[in-house]
Amino acid sequence: MSTTAETTRNGVDTGQLFGTLDAIKGEPSLATFQFRARNRWIAGAHNRSTIRDFYAANQEDTSREREFVLDAGEPAILLGTDTGPNPAEYLLHALAACLTTSLVYIAAARGVHLTEVESTLEGEMDVQGALGLSDEYRNGFEHIHVSFRIAGDAPEEKLREVVERAQKRSAVFDMVTNGVPVTVEATMV
Amino acid sequence: MSTTAETTRNGVDTGQLFGTLDAIKGEPSLATFQFRARNRWIAGAHNRSTIRDFYAANQEDTSREREFVLDAGEPAILLGTDTGPNPAEYLLHALAACLTTSLVYIAAARGVHLTEVESTLEGEMDVQGALGLSDEYRNGFEHIHVSFRIAGDAPEEKLREVVERAQKRSAVFDMVTNGVPVTVEATMV
Repeated sequence: MSTTAETTRNGVDTGQLFGTLDAIKGEPSLATFQFRARNRWIAGAHNRSTIRDFYAANQEDTSREREFVLDAGEPAILLGTDTGPNPAEYLLHALAACLTTSLVYIAAARGVHLTEVESTLEGEMDVQGALGLSDEYRNGFEHIHVSFRIAGDAPEEKLREVVERAQKRSAVFDMVTNGVPVTVEATMV
Repeated sequence: MSTTAETTRNGVDTGQLFGTLDAIKGEPSLATFQFRARNRWIAGAHNRSTIRDFYAANQEDTSREREFVLDAGEPAILLGTDTGPNPAEYLLHALAACLTTSLVYIAAARGVHLTEVESTLEGEMDVQGALGLSDEYRNGFEHIHVSFRIAGDAPEEKLREVVERAQKRSAVFDMVTNGVPVTVEATMV
């Protein structure tokens, strides 16, 4: 009887994961990515992004079979008609999704089987900032709080290490906590 | 013959907009908002947020008739199965949506009719950071570039002022460029 090493853990193919890491170690230019979104205004607070193509591993990645369509909106109190989550709520989702994916991949790499990962995110905002009524308030959230509920087959200490490491390596956590330089250009047509 | 002031511009009810601003000026506590997202891991890079309730104007806002469901994922090269845009792409969408909504509301308040607002966002990332292979690279985008195409009934200079003001007042632009304090707690169940 032969023993086969487990390759898929938490839905992550760890063989592929370690293979990807080895490939990038051998050829670091494979790590250069560009992600994109295209947005079109529809009316009022309703606008829509389409997302599909991106650049990765020294070429355009055309593997996605379809584009993703995301509708944004505002609730009535912010003059919209609920055509989608609002932009600040999308940011909370981006943060939740990135911390969760980082946590799941790191757990997979460290041999931890997860059975449950749930999170609740809350962001506090005084809209006097964004509405231009007061310079005493910033436009965005003053603070975001993330609460995770996690279950897995490892001791609590090991699960906590995974949560710590996820914060240390999450792309969106980095961007939301540290900020990113953004340039904006506009062409009037 | 009476002349009626236009009240809806760019799909924004400007009467309601100015009424909201006046209400908050009279009672600033109305401006305290809390937005939320709840996320659940499904498998691998697939996780899902639900968004519905929020706090606004001194009470829980229950006006939304349904919850929004957002699925995140990763493409094959990042070990996913394209169950949704990835978290960094969601951040680009949040930024595009917020800049666009700010721009449309500000134009409405200033009497500018817009006929087209489109944007393309690009974020550059070296995944050696997020993959934990090198501390020379940050985890998130090194830089985000936003290109707008805008058409409206105002002179180019006035349209440029609207774009400037949108950057100055957008909640997500503030958060992405300046960062937000984030606290993370985890309960192991």
